[in-house]
Amino acid sequence: MFLRNCWYVAAWDYEIASEGLMTRTILGDPVLIYRLASGALTAIADRCCHRQAPLSRGRREGDDIRCMYHGLKFDPTGRCIEIPGQESIPPAARVRSYPIEQRHSWIWVWMGDPEKADTALIPPAAGLDAPEWLMKSGHMDYQANYELINDNLCDFSHLAYVHEKTFGAGDDQFATTRPKISTLPRGIRVERWTVNPPSQEYDRRRPPSADMYLRYDYLAPGILLMYSAQLPAGSAQRADFGEPRDEPHHANFTSQAVTPTSETASRYFFCWGPRSSEALATPQLVDDMFSLAGRAFEEDRKMIEAQQRNLLLSLDDPPLFISHDRGPSLMRQVLRKLIEEERGSRTPSPATA
Amino acid sequence: MFLRNCWYVAAWDYEIASEGLMTRTILGDPVLIYRLASGALTAIADRCCHRQAPLSRGRREGDDIRCMYHGLKFDPTGRCIEIPGQESIPPAARVRSYPIEQRHSWIWVWMGDPEKADTALIPPAAGLDAPEWLMKSGHMDYQANYELINDNLCDFSHLAYVHEKTFGAGDDQFATTRPKISTLPRGIRVERWTVNPPSQEYDRRRPPSADMYLRYDYLAPGILLMYSAQLPAGSAQRADFGEPRDEPHHANFTSQAVTPTSETASRYFFCWGPRSSEALATPQLVDDMFSLAGRAFEEDRKMIEAQQRNLLLSLDDPPLFISHDRGPSLMRQVLRKLIEEERGSRTPSPATA
Amino acid sequence: MFLRNCWYVAAWDYEIASEGLMTRTILGDPVLIYRLASGALTAIADRCCHRQAPLSRGRREGDDIRCMYHGLKFDPTGRCIEIPGQESIPPAARVRSYPIEQRHSWIWVWMGDPEKADTALIPPAAGLDAPEWLMKSGHMDYQANYELINDNLCDFSHLAYVHEKTFGAGDDQFATTRPKISTLPRGIRVERWTVNPPSQEYDRRRPPSADMYLRYDYLAPGILLMYSAQLPAGSAQRADFGEPRDEPHHANFTSQAVTPTSETASRYFFCWGPRSSEALATPQLVDDMFSLAGRAFEEDRKMIEAQQRNLLLSLDDPPLFISHDRGPSLMRQVLRKLIEEERGSRTPSPATA
Repeated sequence: MFLRNCWYVAAWDYEIASEGLMTRTILGDPVLIYRLASGALTAIADRCCHRQAPLSRGRREGDDIRCMYHGLKFDPTGRCIEIPGQESIPPAARVRSYPIEQRHSWIWVWMGDPEKADTALIPPAAGLDAPEWLMKSGHMDYQANYELINDNLCDFSHLAYVHEKTFGAGDDQFATTRPKISTLPRGIRVERWTVNPPSQEYDRRRPPSADMYLRYDYLAPGILLMYSAQLPAGSAQRADFGEPRDEPHHANFTSQAVTPTSETASRYFFCWGPRSSEALATPQLVDDMFSLAGRAFEEDRKMIEAQQRNLLLSLDDPPLFISHDRGPSLMRQVLRKLIEEERGSRTPSPATA
Repeated sequence: MFLRNCWYVAAWDYEIASEGLMTRTILGDPVLIYRLASGALTAIADRCCHRQAPLSRGRREGDDIRCMYHGLKFDPTGRCIEIPGQESIPPAARVRSYPIEQRHSWIWVWMGDPEKADTALIPPAAGLDAPEWLMKSGHMDYQANYELINDNLCDFSHLAYVHEKTFGAGDDQFATTRPKISTLPRGIRVERWTVNPPSQEYDRRRPPSADMYLRYDYLAPGILLMYSAQLPAGSAQRADFGEPRDEPHHANFTSQAVTPTSETASRYFFCWGPRSSEALATPQLVDDMFSLAGRAFEEDRKMIEAQQRNLLLSLDDPPLFISHDRGPSLMRQVLRKLIEEERGSRTPSPATA
Repeated sequence: MFLRNCWYVAAWDYEIASEGLMTRTILGDPVLIYRLASGALTAIADRCCHRQAPLSRGRREGDDIRCMYHGLKFDPTGRCIEIPGQESIPPAARVRSYPIEQRHSWIWVWMGDPEKADTALIPPAAGLDAPEWLMKSGHMDYQANYELINDNLCDFSHLAYVHEKTFGAGDDQFATTRPKISTLPRGIRVERWTVNPPSQEYDRRRPPSADMYLRYDYLAPGILLMYSAQLPAGSAQRADFGEPRDEPHHANFTSQAVTPTSETASRYFFCWGPRSSEALATPQLVDDMFSLAGRAFEEDRKMIEAQQRNLLLSLDDPPLFISHDRGPSLMRQVLRKLIEEERGSRTPSPATA
C-alpha cells in the first residue's frame, strides 16, 4: 500500500548525467528519467504505450525519445509525436508523465496525480550542496517493504542492540530512556538527549565528557532529516532536556530517504556529514563517519531483511506493542491517514489539507 | 492460452540421436521423444502414470521404456506392458501418446486430440534437407510468451529500430512503408518490396543498386516461412510492387518456429540460407548470414524479454493500436479463432474446416 | 498438510554445541534451538513477538536470549522477561515454546500442542550412542514434499531400479516379490527375505551364498528403523520366510528421519552401521557402507525431486495404484488418520488413543 501523492527520491542528482537514460522502478512503476539539453529533468513511464517495450532501451533524439522496438517517438512530456508508417497520431498516444524536481541533491518524482504535485511538499533536506554541511552520500537496496525501514528509523532504541558496536557505541540510553515525540502534519518529530554517552569511533577530539542532543523530523513517505549535536557536559541538565542552550562542540546532519521499489523491495538513500565550519570537518572525518555509517546501515539491512522473511511466513499472533513503538506507530498512522485521504475514504483534516 | 490441435516444432531432427531419450516441455507438458530401432520416432508423456517420475530418467529396453523408479515398462505407444510384482495390468495403465512427425528437418509433435492429427497441416517449411537451399540452423530460449515473438515476426517495421545495425542496415523503409498483408486459413501472408535498400553486411557482391522483395507466410501456431530476393534496380517499379517479374541476383529462405514451453517461456527454432544453385552460395556466405542472424535474433530476444517483464507489471491503459499492428493483429485473430473452435465455442468456418 | 502432535527430528545432537544458537525451519515454523548452561535443550519460536525479528540473530545472556533488534529478553521457556524502556511486561509477551528431547543422538521437537507432548511417542531409534551398533551419520536436504520421501521408504521395490547399481546390486527380488506388511498404531511394519541376493559392494567377507532378512518399522511422521541381517543359505526356507531362526553372519541397523521444512522441502537424517560385536565391524567397513549409502541416497534425491517437479505441473489423470503401493498407501492412511484426529474431525480409535 503506497501513498502516491507525494515526492519520492528517485536518485542522487549526480546519478543522472546530461546524456543517457535512467530507469528506476518506483512503487512498481517503471520510470524513465533523463535530462533535457537545457539541463532540466523529465520523468515519463518507461513503457511505450504501443507494446510496453521499455523506452530506456530507446534512443534519444534531442530532447525526445524514440522507442527502439517500433519507432514511436515521444516528447519529454510523454506525448507521442511520431508513429512510423502513419500520418495521424491519436490523442491517446502518450505515456504517463511524472512531475520531477531536483532539490537538495536529490531527484524527486511525484508518483500520484500531477495536478496535485506541490513543490512546497518537498521536505527541506540538506544534500551535498548544503553550504552548512560537508556531506558524503550513498544508497543501498533492501529486500524489504519500505515501512519496515520507516519503523527502524522512527525508533532509535535499536541503536543499543543492532548498532551495539557501531552507532550505539555500547551505550544503552537509547533503549532505557524515551525520546520526546510529537506529530507534524505529514510526519513526526523526535527529540532526545543522551547524557555523556561513549564517544563515536570517528570522534577523536571529544572532550572527556559531553552530552548529545538529537532532533529529527520523519516525513511521509519516508524522509529522515536529523540534526545531532555534541554539547558541553551538563548541557542536557541545563536545558532541562529540551532545546539546547549551549553552543555545540560538534554538530552533524543526515538526510535519508526510503523509496519503495515494490511491496517487498526498497531503495535507501542517505548522506551524512559535520558542519563545514568546524575545525574538525576534514575529509578524513567525513570518511570516518561514512565508514561507520556504512557498517551500521548494513547491520540494519541484515536485521530488517531477516524480519521481512519471517513476516512472509504465517503468523499465529498479533505483534506485541511496546512503549518504544510510539514513534513507528505514530508514523504509520500519519501515512495511513494520508493514504486514506488520497483514496477518498476520509475527509482531509485541516492540518493536512 | 494455447492451441493444442496443431503441430509444434519440438526439436531439430539431428537433436534426437538413434540412442537416448530427449525430454522437452511443450505447452507445459513434459514430453519424452526417442527413436525406435526402425528409426521411427515416438513421443509420450514424460511422466509415469504410477507416481509421475520422469520416464526420461528411465531405461530403454529395445523400443520400450522402463521407468527407473518402480520399474513399470511402457511400449512406444505409452501402454504399460509390465508392472513388477504383479500379473495383471489395468487398462488405465498408460501414459499419453503424442502424434509425432519428422519433416523438413524438424520434429513436429501434435499436442491435442490424436484423432485430429493431420499431417497435411504440417507447414511446408524448408529445412537442412531442402535441395534448393543451403541452410544453417539453430535455436534460442526466450523468457517470454510465444505470442510476443509471433507479434515480432508478423511486423517487420521493427527492423528499422531493433535491427538498425543488423538486418535493418540503417534503412527505414520497413517502418515508413507498409507491406501487403492477406489472411490465410491458418495464418497470414506478408509481401513487400524495399527499393534500393543498403546492402546487408554479408552481401559483398551486390550490384550498386538493387531492389529487395520479401514474402512470407506466418502460420499457426507460430511458423514463419520466408522467401527473400534481391532483384535488379527498378524491379519493384516494373512489378508494380507485386509479384516480381525479373530474375533475382540472389535469393534466400528462412524457416522459423516458435514453440511455447510455458505461458512465459518459449523456444525459437530457425534456419536460413541462400539458394544452393547460386555461385555465391559458399559455406562462408552461409556462415556470414548466420552470424548476422545470431546477433539480430539476440536483439529481438533482449527487447521482447524486456517487454515481457513490463507486461508482468500492472497496466493502467490499453495498448495503443498502430497501423503496423495489422499483421500481428490478424495473426492473433487467426489464432484466437482456432483456439475458440478447438474449445467448441465457435463453429468452424468453411475456410478453416 | 502436517501432523503437528508428534516428535520431529530437528538435528543430530552433535549439531548443537554448548554455545551458539541454531535455527531450523520445521513445518514452515522458524525454531530456535540452544543448550542451557546445564546442558539441557530449549526450543522456542525463532521470531520475536514484538516485530518478528529472528532471535537467532540475538545474543545469549546466560540461559536467556536477547533479541538484538529492540532488546526484548526471553527466558528459555519463551517468556519475555525484559522490555527496554518500560517497567511492565504484558503476559502476552512471549514466544512459543516447543517441547524438546535429546534421545538416540537425535534432537526431537514436538511441533503441536505442548500439553500433549508425550516422550513415550519418541520412536526407539538407534543412534551413534547405541552400544549394539557402530554407526555413521549424515543428513541431506530435499526440494520435495516429505510424503514423497515417506513413499520411497515404505516401498523397497525401487531398489531394483533407482538403486540398480548401489543397494539393489543388480537383484530384482525387491521388485518381483512382495514383503509382508502390517499396520502399527502409528505406522507400518515391513518384513521380507531375499534369497541368495548378490553381495553388497562393501561386503567382502560374505559366504558364497546367503539369505538376507530385513525388517523395519516406519513410524509417523516419517521415521524408519530398520534391521537387516545376512544369514546362512537356506535360512529363509528354514524360517518359512518368517522370523529368522538362524544366527546371522552379519547384521546392521539404520535409523532415518524425514522432517518437513515446508510443503515442498524436507531434511533427511540418517545413520547406518553394523553390529559393533562383529569381527568385521571395522571403521573401514562403516566407511564403505556409508559411501554406498551416500550414493544411493543421492539416487533417491534426484528421482524424488524430479517427481516433485512433475507433480507441480497440472495432471490430467489420477495416479495408477500398483500392488507395491501397499506400504506407502498404508502409511499415508496412518498419517491421514492421525492428522484428522488431531484436527478433531475423527474420534481417536482405541489403538491410537
